Amino acid sequence: MLQTKSQDIAASLQANVALILEENRKLADRIQYSEVATIIPFIQGAERIFLVGAGRSGLALQSAAMRLMHLGLSVFVVGETITPAIREGDLLLAASGSGTTSSIVKAAEKAVAAGAKVVALSTTAASPLAMLAAHAIIVPAAQKEDHGTTVSEQYAGSLFEQAILVLTDAVFQTLWSLDKTPAEELWKRHANLE
Amino acid sequence: MLQTKSQDIAASLQANVALILEENRKLADRIQYSEVATIIPFIQGAERIFLVGAGRSGLALQSAAMRLMHLGLSVFVVGETITPAIREGDLLLAASGSGTTSSIVKAAEKAVAAGAKVVALSTTAASPLAMLAAHAIIVPAAQKEDHGTTVSEQYAGSLFEQAILVLTDAVFQTLWSLDKTPAEELWKRHANLE
Amino acid sequence: MLQTKSQDIAASLQANVALILEENRKLADRIQYSEVATIIPFIQGAERIFLVGAGRSGLALQSAAMRLMHLGLSVFVVGETITPAIREGDLLLAASGSGTTSSIVKAAEKAVAAGAKVVALSTTAASPLAMLAAHAIIVPAAQKEDHGTTVSEQYAGSLFEQAILVLTDAVFQTLWSLDKTPAEELWKRHANLE
Amino acid sequence: MLQTKSQDIAASLQANVALILEENRKLADRIQYSEVATIIPFIQGAERIFLVGAGRSGLALQSAAMRLMHLGLSVFVVGETITPAIREGDLLLAASGSGTTSSIVKAAEKAVAAGAKVVALSTTAASPLAMLAAHAIIVPAAQKEDHGTTVSEQYAGSLFEQAILVLTDAVFQTLWSLDKTPAEELWKRHANLE
Repeated sequence: MLQTKSQDIAASLQANVALILEENRKLADRIQYSEVATIIPFIQGAERIFLVGAGRSGLALQSAAMRLMHLGLSVFVVGETITPAIREGDLLLAASGSGTTSSIVKAAEKAVAAGAKVVALSTTAASPLAMLAAHAIIVPAAQKEDHGTTVSEQYAGSLFEQAILVLTDAVFQTLWSLDKTPAEELWKRHANLE
Repeated sequence: MLQTKSQDIAASLQANVALILEENRKLADRIQYSEVATIIPFIQGAERIFLVGAGRSGLALQSAAMRLMHLGLSVFVVGETITPAIREGDLLLAASGSGTTSSIVKAAEKAVAAGAKVVALSTTAASPLAMLAAHAIIVPAAQKEDHGTTVSEQYAGSLFEQAILVLTDAVFQTLWSLDKTPAEELWKRHANLE
Repeated sequence: MLQTKSQDIAASLQANVALILEENRKLADRIQYSEVATIIPFIQGAERIFLVGAGRSGLALQSAAMRLMHLGLSVFVVGETITPAIREGDLLLAASGSGTTSSIVKAAEKAVAAGAKVVALSTTAASPLAMLAAHAIIVPAAQKEDHGTTVSEQYAGSLFEQAILVLTDAVFQTLWSLDKTPAEELWKRHANLE
Repeated sequence: MLQTKSQDIAASLQANVALILEENRKLADRIQYSEVATIIPFIQGAERIFLVGAGRSGLALQSAAMRLMHLGLSVFVVGETITPAIREGDLLLAASGSGTTSSIVKAAEKAVAAGAKVVALSTTAASPLAMLAAHAIIVPAAQKEDHGTTVSEQYAGSLFEQAILVLTDAVFQTLWSLDKTPAEELWKRHANLE
């Protein structure tokens, strides 16, 4: 009886992993990669790159920040101790599913006011964040679909947050392929005091 | 000419997204879900749940920690300000691809010494972390395959780190389906001061 | 010559330590302790205590958060991973020298809207933060004095930030003396996985 | 009756503030400032400065890290997202009251192995951390005194942690006086996206 239950749980977990990956696969088909591609010259042309997101979007961007640091770029996460003022020449990469998270919109406004460029990641082109940005990458992860179903069966913004990780990891892979630095050189930059 | 380059970049990004999702899909087929299922009673039976990981594995676990908090569980991330001492009755969820990261192994040793239970997420069953743990979930994300190729073309531990996010999000979905609390109730627990 | 320089530096450091401690001593004489005392019943009566501050004020409050956790209270730092929604019955302790830092004022507004109580630490009673708060503790650390000199020769808000640490450590000592739990019991709560 | 209690609390708070400042003042008299002065050329000569401490010592060092960033130095806090590998030419500033905290000693060992210099802040010259360091600054904050009393009546390492903040703020003031950059220039570096 208990064994059956454990089998049910295993089946539920397997189904949920499949669901998550299938939702991400379908989402990947709906992304405009020419739109995503525009982020590359923004990153390459920036003196320094700042990243900001709230909650789990913020954690996905922190994962991206580590990889950009491994590439040898000058990167800062908003809210960490040693993050300096943003200024002209810098890039702010800001993620918010709704594009309305007040602290993220506020950060984008301040970045624009300081003369920095903003690239937004959001589900909605018409959001305050996307409209503030020099360039917006739309991740259609949580919008309603035609027949009354939503894009995702997952809780809250999970699909958007997963997509931010997948997309920024793809951006990293593409930057790395352009950069051609051997993995060994990147590896030397990994934090070595923890 | 520049336009061609931009098209190349878009194609590279699309290919990299497909690569990441396909690597995760193949990995998902090799996971033992009965092994993963064992984590559910550990979580349900724990007084408090502590999570620890270094670098991007740690960030994936922080995403998991938020969701466990949304479920109403008592959760702490090792290294954050208000994380108290672990003790008997508590669970430590520890992730390390190699299973050898010294700070993570050390934390697991201390948790065991304090009488807490440890569940490990690692690529290798024979690693110090996995062997310390009451239960180890093996994510075969970076082991060598038969024909001289590796499991992943991605940089470093990226596949493992992505898999930790996917797997813990599946664990959350399963816990939530057992729990049956309406999304509205979970939503009320989301941080509201940021 | 170089030795003289090293002696000069030693003298400068000693003078600066003396300056910092003397500025804090003078400030301590100008604090209304009956006003500070009001924080004690707010802390004792709160279900959970949330702390928020930007930059170095925030770090001083994080030091306070650790001590409140050591006392066995339920404490959260705004912005950390597992911090849930604030609600009625909770207390927000918010520090801002100017009382105008937008993210801190915003957090206080949201806390009030959620039915929580706010206690503010600020240099200025007439500031938005102090006026929002159920109770404000004024730390007169950076206001202009009569004869054209400022309260502090230190850079920026240093004196305020130091005062937050001193004051919250005094609050801890007083709470602990009321609580009478032996140091050994507090010690058992110290983080043991780092 | 209740009012008397409130008066007692106010008196207790005032006495505790006085105690904290008096303990710091006495401690300041026992510090060897020529020993502290040696940190200045280490900081000035470092390519990049890394800071590491656990718990409240770590928070005090984070406050110091912010100020060093305001001075325009290249600074990293161990454990934050974008902290790269330490290497030859870099400085690790490590604080541990006991000088035995395992994660801090381990970080210092790794820094030395990587060819970086280590400056330690500790209460004990004979501690593993102090002995590993190229230079140790002894803060005699928690050692037993002659007549059976301790140096501090405060809980645990509070005096050491306060002293780290005071001492590093004095180091900042001295560095700033040598540097002569106007406050307005430092101010421009303060985080502007929060």
